[in-house]
Amino acid sequence: MSELRKDSVTGRWVIVSTERRKRRSDFHLEPVRVTSDSSCPFCEGHEQMTARELLAFGRQGSAPDTPGWSLRVVPNQVPVLRVEGTLDRQGEGLFDKMNGIGAHEVIIESPRHEETLATLPEDAVEQALWACRERVHDLKRDQRFRSIVIFKNHGAAAGAAVEHSHLQLLALPIVPREVRDEVEGARAHYEIKERCAFCDILRQEITDGRRVIAESADMVAVSPYAPRFPFETWILPRRHEARFEDTPRQELASLARMLGDLLRRMDKALEMPPYNLLIHSAPIKEALGESYHWHVEIIPKLTKVAGFEWATGLYLNPTTPEEAAEVLRETRV
Amino acid sequence: MSELRKDSVTGRWVIVSTERRKRRSDFHLEPVRVTSDSSCPFCEGHEQMTARELLAFGRQGSAPDTPGWSLRVVPNQVPVLRVEGTLDRQGEGLFDKMNGIGAHEVIIESPRHEETLATLPEDAVEQALWACRERVHDLKRDQRFRSIVIFKNHGAAAGAAVEHSHLQLLALPIVPREVRDEVEGARAHYEIKERCAFCDILRQEITDGRRVIAESADMVAVSPYAPRFPFETWILPRRHEARFEDTPRQELASLARMLGDLLRRMDKALEMPPYNLLIHSAPIKEALGESYHWHVEIIPKLTKVAGFEWATGLYLNPTTPEEAAEVLRETRV
Repeated sequence: MSELRKDSVTGRWVIVSTERRKRRSDFHLEPVRVTSDSSCPFCEGHEQMTARELLAFGRQGSAPDTPGWSLRVVPNQVPVLRVEGTLDRQGEGLFDKMNGIGAHEVIIESPRHEETLATLPEDAVEQALWACRERVHDLKRDQRFRSIVIFKNHGAAAGAAVEHSHLQLLALPIVPREVRDEVEGARAHYEIKERCAFCDILRQEITDGRRVIAESADMVAVSPYAPRFPFETWILPRRHEARFEDTPRQELASLARMLGDLLRRMDKALEMPPYNLLIHSAPIKEALGESYHWHVEIIPKLTKVAGFEWATGLYLNPTTPEEAAEVLRETRV
Repeated sequence: MSELRKDSVTGRWVIVSTERRKRRSDFHLEPVRVTSDSSCPFCEGHEQMTARELLAFGRQGSAPDTPGWSLRVVPNQVPVLRVEGTLDRQGEGLFDKMNGIGAHEVIIESPRHEETLATLPEDAVEQALWACRERVHDLKRDQRFRSIVIFKNHGAAAGAAVEHSHLQLLALPIVPREVRDEVEGARAHYEIKERCAFCDILRQEITDGRRVIAESADMVAVSPYAPRFPFETWILPRRHEARFEDTPRQELASLARMLGDLLRRMDKALEMPPYNLLIHSAPIKEALGESYHWHVEIIPKLTKVAGFEWATGLYLNPTTPEEAAEVLRETRV
């Protein structure tokens, strides 16, 4: 018998199917194999192929937009939103629109084409997280923005247009729906309980243990109780903090360590899966210090999303989180 | 410059990008070509390969589960949810779950393998819609169900596991999130305006004309103002009605005509695209007669959904609805 499970923060129901139960070998796997590409705009030596760098680490005196860096942040060449202009909010009869104002940046994690977050040394992953943090602090000064989303598409099947490993950052003049739902759910929990919903989840998961994948002094990786996707994995900081960008360097180092470890386990257990990685953090201007709790979500792309999911917002997950956690917990890398 | 547009019912923002503008030839098209399959469980003569039929049309005296039908409804062989059992709602600490009780049925639209909704004669499409209506009326008698979702996955890329053309029906003990959001948005509009949000949209779209694809006496096909996907198309009945299953036969005949016409235009303009089709109808037990308005949504699968969309619920659409409507309006079939 399958189960309907409810995400305790957003109220989203998922169907965890045990009848359509899938093990790793049942998925249509599309392993991500990084090849080489002499025309890659993100490789060292090709700095002229991107827009001018906004930030670089590791330069020992080399000029901007030349080789000699360990990390670069550049504006997206084909941005979804642009910084220049005014929002110009307006109606069209019943409808509402505004100009596509925002920032769309790319964090190039390494000068080397063949690296991934799973193969990079820990300090390079930490550096990438630190670069995201710095960019968020800079963009928060722009009064037009209401939320900043950081994400990664790994592999073409997960939407990556450029193979060279990179994160993306999007500053938005709105609070998008998924962020809004999670924030409001956490706020409602706080109003009733006077406790953070994610702190409550952490305590329960650690005590229960069945869905815990890995623990460190600062971070806990779990398969969420009501996952939308097989092997969906969350990394939660133990210390309550609403915002990713308010996290001290030492905790980002812990996250880098946990992230590298988890992604290597996924690469081994799920055969180099395409995945999406998302950093969930509180919207910029809202007083959510006590109710929201930033975290990371990793979604390996193992299944297709079809009409059923679009129609209902009700996800069908063929792998229980208990099973997924066990597989990842026992994978040694 | 791209635009942020807000869906006036759900409040969902989408980015309609004109910078990443895509024409038909820019999409990665995966034309759906129906082949033949001698082991197809939905073909005439293979009735023993499915569970026992719940409903059949066109039988001139032939026995159930034998040849001689024009349409069959059968339970899904690998159901997402099952009718047998009790909901057994319970908590697990913070979390909530219930048993996977529901109904999951398949409407086989034709005994012939190679037909699609675009190639079937009008009366066969009408018959398929009528069969859905009958099944909804039957399932509504089960007091455990709160909503019924009807959808189609056309083509493997849209999630179809069986090639032979069919619709799916899912009766659920919950009101899923997408349905809830739309229903609540329409209710909020009604509370302020004392008018149906969809009736308002219809009036404005017909007057404006830029997003209208086709009109008939009973139905209007439009590209919605804030579409999540390129060439997303809605068919709205002109007459206000909350529930698909309360629609008279003559209006379903109109819908069948409009649907066949639209799908043939899509097949021509978008080269036989995979698509998802969804019937949005009011949840079963709620008094929504005046505020909700049933309709059909068709989503050709032309783009990939990546981390950005999961992270934010904010969809990036590379084709404006005005452009999509123009293309489909001018396609002659």
